[in-house]
Amino acid sequence: MKGKAAIDCTLYLVTDRELFPRIRIAEAVVQAILGGVTMVQLREKNVSSRDFYTVAMEIKEITDRYNVPLIINDRLDIALAIDAAGLHVGQDDLPARVARKQLSGTGKILGVSAATVAEALQAQVDGADYIGAGSVFTTDTKKDVRPLSLELLKKIKQAVTIPVVAIGGINENNAGLLQGTGIDGIAVVAAILGKKDARKAAEEVKKIVTFIH
Amino acid sequence: MKGKAAIDCTLYLVTDRELFPRIRIAEAVVQAILGGVTMVQLREKNVSSRDFYTVAMEIKEITDRYNVPLIINDRLDIALAIDAAGLHVGQDDLPARVARKQLSGTGKILGVSAATVAEALQAQVDGADYIGAGSVFTTDTKKDVRPLSLELLKKIKQAVTIPVVAIGGINENNAGLLQGTGIDGIAVVAAILGKKDARKAAEEVKKIVTFIH
Repeated sequence: MKGKAAIDCTLYLVTDRELFPRIRIAEAVVQAILGGVTMVQLREKNVSSRDFYTVAMEIKEITDRYNVPLIINDRLDIALAIDAAGLHVGQDDLPARVARKQLSGTGKILGVSAATVAEALQAQVDGADYIGAGSVFTTDTKKDVRPLSLELLKKIKQAVTIPVVAIGGINENNAGLLQGTGIDGIAVVAAILGKKDARKAAEEVKKIVTFIH
Repeated sequence: MKGKAAIDCTLYLVTDRELFPRIRIAEAVVQAILGGVTMVQLREKNVSSRDFYTVAMEIKEITDRYNVPLIINDRLDIALAIDAAGLHVGQDDLPARVARKQLSGTGKILGVSAATVAEALQAQVDGADYIGAGSVFTTDTKKDVRPLSLELLKKIKQAVTIPVVAIGGINENNAGLLQGTGIDGIAVVAAILGKKDARKAAEEVKKIVTFIH
């Protein structure tokens, strides 16, 4: 059994190749890490398992080089195959308790998405190491979600003992609004990957999250 | 370590919910097993991991009841999560050697698709327990494939020591053509799931495969 990597979710980059097909994801991840990203989640939808595996291997080389934990979205098999630092599951993915069981003895981090206090508490019971709480704001990345209130975000944070990362539509303009919620970090997609200079974008968001933290 | 289930791939049913959305897959699997199917592969494309997991759990109950091995297509995580008898990977899925490594010590069957002698040999080296060779005939299920010749099917069978299952467009009208190729079984989708009476369809194909076998 390997030791579990320490979780520093201050600034958590979540990739989305489908939304940003033109950027070279590997280079963007390098720049984002140089700009201060503390964790990376690889999210690949509508690709073959072989493609997901290949991209994940490529990104793992980068995150290993910079000693940043790489979390795989949804796919436990990919997380195991590339020996990622962890897995993040949402409510449409494998149930958290099933994922936790399959990860037992591996020392891998398990993150779970939650949009309510009940989901967050259940995730903690199921063995989550952190909560991804959101969507906090409206977002182009997931158009069908209703944002949860900052009051609810605060309640989620108070309900659990594990770290809570706010996600969903967070950028350099609205991140400051999260001050006082007690969250442990923020996860961003477009606020970094949507910008020409991913490093500068990460630095700007990092300043704000460090300030409110 | 559990013992590996014996492989009887005489008549191997491969499901395809996307192509046959109207049938209730669980009932069709029951009827197909009653008609003589010896192995079942659950293939689910473009569904969420949660949906795949839920359907797989449902089908596993059936295959367990009838003591028929359930093989999961593509998704190692689902195979592990439901404790399926095995996993089948194609050339777009996790590399066979990677899948074999993750399955080590589980006693699970690993099937690998191959369309050439080289692919079949590599699959055997990588730890495959059987080869799915095809497409043998043109098929509506996978429209972009070019069928391999019966001569090539025979060569694949002669090249490897593990069982070879022929797949791709096989039905009650053309299955007899496979006589003399030495294959260990046939895999069918539409020839059973495309018929109103899955049990009767399975019985008819089973008669032919038993005859040519």
